[in-house]
Amino acid sequence: MTAMTIPPGESALARRAEFRSLHDGLAAIGGDQAGGWTRFAWTPQDRAAREWFTREAEASGMGVETDRNGNLWATWPGGDASGERQAGPSAVGTGSHLDTVRNGGAYDGALGVICGLLAVRRLQQRRLRPRLRVQVAAFADEEGGRFGLATFGSRLAAGVLQPEYARDFRDAQDVPLIEAVAPFGVDPGPDPDRLARLAAYVEVHVEQGRGLVDLDAPVGVATGIWPHGRWRLRLTGEGNHAGTTRLADRRDPTLPLAVAIQAARRLATGEGGVATVGRITLEPNGTNSIPAAATGWLDARAADEGALARMVAEWTSEVRTAATEHGVDADVVSESLTPAVSFDRELADRLAGVLGAGGLPAPRLATAAGHDAGALAASVPTGMLFVRNPTGASHTPAEYASDEDCLTVVEVLADVLEELACR
Amino acid sequence: MTAMTIPPGESALARRAEFRSLHDGLAAIGGDQAGGWTRFAWTPQDRAAREWFTREAEASGMGVETDRNGNLWATWPGGDASGERQAGPSAVGTGSHLDTVRNGGAYDGALGVICGLLAVRRLQQRRLRPRLRVQVAAFADEEGGRFGLATFGSRLAAGVLQPEYARDFRDAQDVPLIEAVAPFGVDPGPDPDRLARLAAYVEVHVEQGRGLVDLDAPVGVATGIWPHGRWRLRLTGEGNHAGTTRLADRRDPTLPLAVAIQAARRLATGEGGVATVGRITLEPNGTNSIPAAATGWLDARAADEGALARMVAEWTSEVRTAATEHGVDADVVSESLTPAVSFDRELADRLAGVLGAGGLPAPRLATAAGHDAGALAASVPTGMLFVRNPTGASHTPAEYASDEDCLTVVEVLADVLEELACR
Repeated sequence: MTAMTIPPGESALARRAEFRSLHDGLAAIGGDQAGGWTRFAWTPQDRAAREWFTREAEASGMGVETDRNGNLWATWPGGDASGERQAGPSAVGTGSHLDTVRNGGAYDGALGVICGLLAVRRLQQRRLRPRLRVQVAAFADEEGGRFGLATFGSRLAAGVLQPEYARDFRDAQDVPLIEAVAPFGVDPGPDPDRLARLAAYVEVHVEQGRGLVDLDAPVGVATGIWPHGRWRLRLTGEGNHAGTTRLADRRDPTLPLAVAIQAARRLATGEGGVATVGRITLEPNGTNSIPAAATGWLDARAADEGALARMVAEWTSEVRTAATEHGVDADVVSESLTPAVSFDRELADRLAGVLGAGGLPAPRLATAAGHDAGALAASVPTGMLFVRNPTGASHTPAEYASDEDCLTVVEVLADVLEELACR
Repeated sequence: MTAMTIPPGESALARRAEFRSLHDGLAAIGGDQAGGWTRFAWTPQDRAAREWFTREAEASGMGVETDRNGNLWATWPGGDASGERQAGPSAVGTGSHLDTVRNGGAYDGALGVICGLLAVRRLQQRRLRPRLRVQVAAFADEEGGRFGLATFGSRLAAGVLQPEYARDFRDAQDVPLIEAVAPFGVDPGPDPDRLARLAAYVEVHVEQGRGLVDLDAPVGVATGIWPHGRWRLRLTGEGNHAGTTRLADRRDPTLPLAVAIQAARRLATGEGGVATVGRITLEPNGTNSIPAAATGWLDARAADEGALARMVAEWTSEVRTAATEHGVDADVVSESLTPAVSFDRELADRLAGVLGAGGLPAPRLATAAGHDAGALAASVPTGMLFVRNPTGASHTPAEYASDEDCLTVVEVLADVLEELACR
């Protein structure tokens, strides 16, 4: 069995129809006015997506449970239908998440869940009796779209997000996160036993850039996640009349803010990372007012922690210098910092081996985006498979993967799960 | 009688007490949580200020009426109590406005109204029977704080603001301006007969910069108002993931926005004007998003229309070049443009003469701020007196004029009104 082989008696057309049925079923939930998908966690759209997941999993003979953090786990008992357990890990996991950002696309998260469900069907079609259970997870609130707290379910389960920290978050309507999750049966906290049962976790995800397009490869193997973080820059000047205040008398915080925007780009270029000031507030933000204060948020990511630290230190220094030149006070606060994640080397080699056995190139690439797989990586041998995204777009309706590439990665994932669960 | 002479039998202390009584009475209305004043037009605070004005004017024997545009006119008939009119202009006007910006100060607008009321009391104390009526105006919605449409009442009266244009404005709660003004009896439109009755209009205003502080002069004579305008810059790039989008693939509108901020300052320095980008919106304004679009508003002012035009043209050109470099579309739209105002030369000479007769320096200075006087200048011989502002601040609680300087300008204004109305 290789990734590219269609089993005798089964048509490629039928496989495509099966994929489209799952894809379209989930895409029917949470479509928004702007031609994309807004399927925030802890909303009616989320509930509908969870019901869709449960229906589809049960249709494949899987049982579905919700853990204390709101993550869904669909389990195919395989050869372990008796419930008897051997010592050590008893399951192999795959999956992703059902929620989206505001006006997001149809693939981020959704593809990993769909591929997990379809891969289990492949194993069933192959009439295998796996040694380990196979679980498909739909992690809760990966995007943090409504409350701003990303990879909620996976980080809580892995014990890297403290429940106390989660309790402070509120949405734009001031609804506390803790109230929104209650109707979903959530009692947030670590779930070490559940993760300890996993021998491995493999997540399929649409690529969020053009790496695979440039390499002309349908599927790639993740090496890790770049360290990344958010820093809040507060610039305090002096509010005044934009018409009558002489230039020499001004303490205008927008001038060091402009330096912050430009320095982020230049320093990221120098370090081979990325850095963005994509969120700004001015006070009072009036056309004829010199702002009293400006706040800008830096999102910075780099291949290693040294490069990231140099980038942020130099950025802070340049912004402080510009602020001083303009009589403005500058304060930089770290809001979050996620260390580098290295995925399991042995598992990555196994993923590459399956690709090679199917006659596919097996490029390895890192990503700068956070994932549930990143949260699990410290507890479970974890890997990721990226699927070619012809537009390179992410978190917009333009993100895309061809049906052909999606069907290819289903076969690859099925082969990987077979190796992990059956041998 | 000179500006600096206190009449026999009257103590300087009593004059100060009279000024403080009026100042504190108006300052008791619209104080905000942030230690300043937020007295927007067409609000309960505005209504309370109008009632204060009416009480104080009536206490001085003046009748008060509201014109079609919501402007208040207090009239001292002087020697014309019979209502008989001579041919030609029948009145001399002074005044300013009662509204403030958000978290503004206690002097902008308020000082001109208080000085007008006190100057009429001086004329009465001098037992004069003026040939012309003396009117104190409180123009409606000078600041445009709630609806963004400044010098509402004076520009409508002068016919330089079309009522149709005013009908489109809404406040932050989406209340239409036209609904908010209705309870104040406003039926917006030109009022040429009312303005034709004015032989002259003289407005006292706290200076909004440090010109008089540097010249060590308590009062100055305005020569005119710089031409000024607002331009809206729309930068359209491509929204994407701030972590996974390679720098080379980005079309980030914040980078040309940074150039817009810096170019405004540099070009204003070169032309001796002022220019500010104090209002910005990003879409979607998320920490981990490259914005799809950015909008910035340029407020620019210069000593003459040529300098202003050069500044804005060069700014537009530089921003377009930066936008093109980053694959961003740039669109610049003029939102408003107020031509240069030259105040009446003969009236300015008269104001300077009164200052000189009082032993005061009579510096002349232009301003870059709009005023009701600027709106009237095309219809009525108009002048302005600025009062020294030790902080140089404007539109903040820090704006200030000393009681001594305020009392001085009351005497100057009384002398001016005596010359204009009695001789």
